Amino acid sequence: MIVVKIGGGAGLNLDAICADIASLIAWEEPVVVVHGGSHETNIISEKLGHPPRFITSPSGVQSRYTDRETLEIFAMVVAGRVNKMLVERLQRRRVNAVGLSGLDGRLVEGKRKEVVIAVENGKKRVIRDDYGGMVEQVNRTLLQILLDQGFTPVIAPLAIGERGEALNVDGDRVAALVATTLGARALVILSNVPGLLRHFPDESTLIPCIPADQLEQYQEYAQGRMKKKLLGAGEAIRGGVRRVILADGRGELPLLRALVEENGTVIWGTNGHGAPGCAN
Amino acid sequence: MIVVKIGGGAGLNLDAICADIASLIAWEEPVVVVHGGSHETNIISEKLGHPPRFITSPSGVQSRYTDRETLEIFAMVVAGRVNKMLVERLQRRRVNAVGLSGLDGRLVEGKRKEVVIAVENGKKRVIRDDYGGMVEQVNRTLLQILLDQGFTPVIAPLAIGERGEALNVDGDRVAALVATTLGARALVILSNVPGLLRHFPDESTLIPCIPADQLEQYQEYAQGRMKKKLLGAGEAIRGGVRRVILADGRGELPLLRALVEENGTVIWGTNGHGAPGCAN
Repeated sequence: MIVVKIGGGAGLNLDAICADIASLIAWEEPVVVVHGGSHETNIISEKLGHPPRFITSPSGVQSRYTDRETLEIFAMVVAGRVNKMLVERLQRRRVNAVGLSGLDGRLVEGKRKEVVIAVENGKKRVIRDDYGGMVEQVNRTLLQILLDQGFTPVIAPLAIGERGEALNVDGDRVAALVATTLGARALVILSNVPGLLRHFPDESTLIPCIPADQLEQYQEYAQGRMKKKLLGAGEAIRGGVRRVILADGRGELPLLRALVEENGTVIWGTNGHGAPGCAN
Repeated sequence: MIVVKIGGGAGLNLDAICADIASLIAWEEPVVVVHGGSHETNIISEKLGHPPRFITSPSGVQSRYTDRETLEIFAMVVAGRVNKMLVERLQRRRVNAVGLSGLDGRLVEGKRKEVVIAVENGKKRVIRDDYGGMVEQVNRTLLQILLDQGFTPVIAPLAIGERGEALNVDGDRVAALVATTLGARALVILSNVPGLLRHFPDESTLIPCIPADQLEQYQEYAQGRMKKKLLGAGEAIRGGVRRVILADGRGELPLLRALVEENGTVIWGTNGHGAPGCAN
């Protein structure tokens, strides 16, 4: 089983990604898809007159400021537009996809960040009306019955909070916890960069391989959303996933090239087998 | 098992409807929910600068003109906003709802209307880029495995066409075919009117009961969307559903009052048991 995270940035080749997913499934490799939707959420939010706002945590991680109206727009875009258009693309290739969000069947449980500390122009500010959450648990029942029946789950990054409320959660962390919960043998995180770059945005400085025990040191190279991808990768590796690949989702055969040619940044877990060495 | 259609018009009391669904499930009566989303689709379409357009068929039935952009907005609103906000409301009442559209797992198969004849100012016009469809088949596998595991399916009115394309379909017809396919004992169609009115919009002229074999004669009283509700009711009755209730979704206890007090317009099927007489 492979978990594929399809990034929510601009420029991904969704047709090629869906073709690769169809190939894997034709080879009897089950796939679970998790996706984002940040770019489309920004566009729709602007058009609806509720432009996106972002907050930066004291540790420098950026996230979407999600008041209730933003949450409803986010739900609409990721669980409606992005999710259903992906399901449609997969169905056209005869993959029997089922689109879900973390709300559905309590698939992804999260904890609402009741108080968020944001840094703006060097000053700290407390935010209390944010519907962002931390992913806490993935419930395998629903996923497992779908997989057992030959369906391919496609998951939008919403979670359900302790009071049953919808939460905006990070898709990379959802993908990591889905991979861990289902015991996936690989997690492929596709985005609009080739992987982790030593000197962002110079794509010739791709870091091809990171030993799992050195992930934290490599955080210094991560810019913007790549920070969360490395956090997700670390969570997946600690949860027993053997291989996480941060790969380019823009070209042809993006998923197969990541899995077969290890095109991208590969993070090896040891998982009791001993990790292959990294040459870089 | 009860199938509940929650209309997409303005003014429905969604909290009360969800509370009633939670009561039915607590009494071990399984429920499948089908919903609309026309009112919210109109609002969002306007805001996105792609205002809704409607076409009238030669037989006088009105439907949404669905070009590809409208389809994507419709999918976003019904399968994202309306569906997930309903799932959230149900989850808050401890109903383990799973939101789906007809695309997911090929739940609802439809036939695209390749050529649509529209009447405008008495003149006929041919439309070829419409993504409206006719509901043809509901696949029970996915619904049945969800129901067997204690989940409550919540279905948005999209279908999958012969080429795997998403289609905008009528929620009342989806509800009717879901009820037929699952052998539901009742179909309750909740909207923002009390039922079928002899003199629309005079609510004191509610028709309380229609014998199934006279449904066609009663079409003359139906205005606008009520025409499709009667068509759906007829399909459900012919498919073996014992009782269809067109009821008011605006007040308190809307679903329970429909089922227990037969508040609304009741259409009785015979289903081999002999139909109770209608007093009106």
